[in-house]
Amino acid sequence: MNNIKIISFDADDTLWVNETYFRDAEDDFARLLSDYETENKIHQELFKKEIENLKIYGYGVKGFMLSMVECALEISNYKISPKKMEAILEIGKEMLEKPIELLDGVEEVLQELHGKYKLIVATKGDLLDQERKLAKSGILKYFHHTEVMSEKKKTDYKKLVKRLDINPSEFLMIGNSLKSDVLPLIEIGATAIHVPFHTTWAHEEVNEEQKSDAYKTVSSITDVLKFL
Amino acid sequence: MNNIKIISFDADDTLWVNETYFRDAEDDFARLLSDYETENKIHQELFKKEIENLKIYGYGVKGFMLSMVECALEISNYKISPKKMEAILEIGKEMLEKPIELLDGVEEVLQELHGKYKLIVATKGDLLDQERKLAKSGILKYFHHTEVMSEKKKTDYKKLVKRLDINPSEFLMIGNSLKSDVLPLIEIGATAIHVPFHTTWAHEEVNEEQKSDAYKTVSSITDVLKFL
Repeated sequence: MNNIKIISFDADDTLWVNETYFRDAEDDFARLLSDYETENKIHQELFKKEIENLKIYGYGVKGFMLSMVECALEISNYKISPKKMEAILEIGKEMLEKPIELLDGVEEVLQELHGKYKLIVATKGDLLDQERKLAKSGILKYFHHTEVMSEKKKTDYKKLVKRLDINPSEFLMIGNSLKSDVLPLIEIGATAIHVPFHTTWAHEEVNEEQKSDAYKTVSSITDVLKFL
Repeated sequence: MNNIKIISFDADDTLWVNETYFRDAEDDFARLLSDYETENKIHQELFKKEIENLKIYGYGVKGFMLSMVECALEISNYKISPKKMEAILEIGKEMLEKPIELLDGVEEVLQELHGKYKLIVATKGDLLDQERKLAKSGILKYFHHTEVMSEKKKTDYKKLVKRLDINPSEFLMIGNSLKSDVLPLIEIGATAIHVPFHTTWAHEEVNEEQKSDAYKTVSSITDVLKFL
């Protein structure tokens, strides 16, 4: 990793807690609809609805809220009460106003790397929400800028690296999602370090076979300093 | 305008029709709720709700949809039927799947300026939705890249110009909103051309006093070629 110029950090579940809030929201949603279905079935249907809507809503809390509303109508056979609808909106609004919980070691790593590399954030999700989180996080000062991406696939990273005006081999991505933060980078000739978070959204999970020796996995973000 | 290096185009209602679709959606929404209130009152309440939610949802169709849902609950005194809720979601989904109607002269202007200046798009709204519209528009090929901004105020443009690594005086913005595409640019020492669209969202309107001689107003986008 001698020639790395730009280090890009995923945000949600790499810099701060995120997936945990989605899981809590899903549990709250399932409880609200427990008159109509089992919690297990409600979780399954909500996930299906999110994936179905991903192509039009993209990632982030607002699309998640709209999928909850739609899912609630269907699961209840169009019998859900307006007050429960309001409670669903409230679940989403609370997510948008959560405090930021930085993950252990994040600030230490950023302090150490700041000034030695150009540091950026590359994240999916709602533009305003990600900016809000970064502003609240207190770590904005370490980053040159933020890239909010609509997708994190091979072509998206190719475009990003091109816009940053460097070679893929000079780009290091650090993130918790093998599917979004690691594998596409390896494919384009960049470098990636995988820092797993304890909870992974089903949509971000990959098969065991897709794992490879081409990237490093570390158990704590502070371990990335060993390679840099 | 001799030293302009980068020309930035606003997207909605500058390159293609947008506000018209929002107005149609507001009319559909008001008709759905006509059992509860006058259309005029419904329009007023929806606008209030949008502005109230702007700080958490930002600009774009998804936030608009969530504001319609919330507004419908309140206007109906929590009596709205689930089927009408579904119809509200449908209004929004249709907006997200609208074809792109380029405004007259847009392609001619881009063809003429392409290769002579670095052309970019600077737009507010949902990231994925703006990317979708640009991809559908057939004019993506003329642009170096797209900047989706959470706000278009003075500080946002300052950051943008800095990231583009040019002086404000080398930056020209072309757009239909005095408030978002023209006045903040003049304030930071950049150049702006105002191309009004026949419909302006109330939130984007400015007082007559804020108008100035510091920018040009043209009646058709093709008129910008006279200055370049």
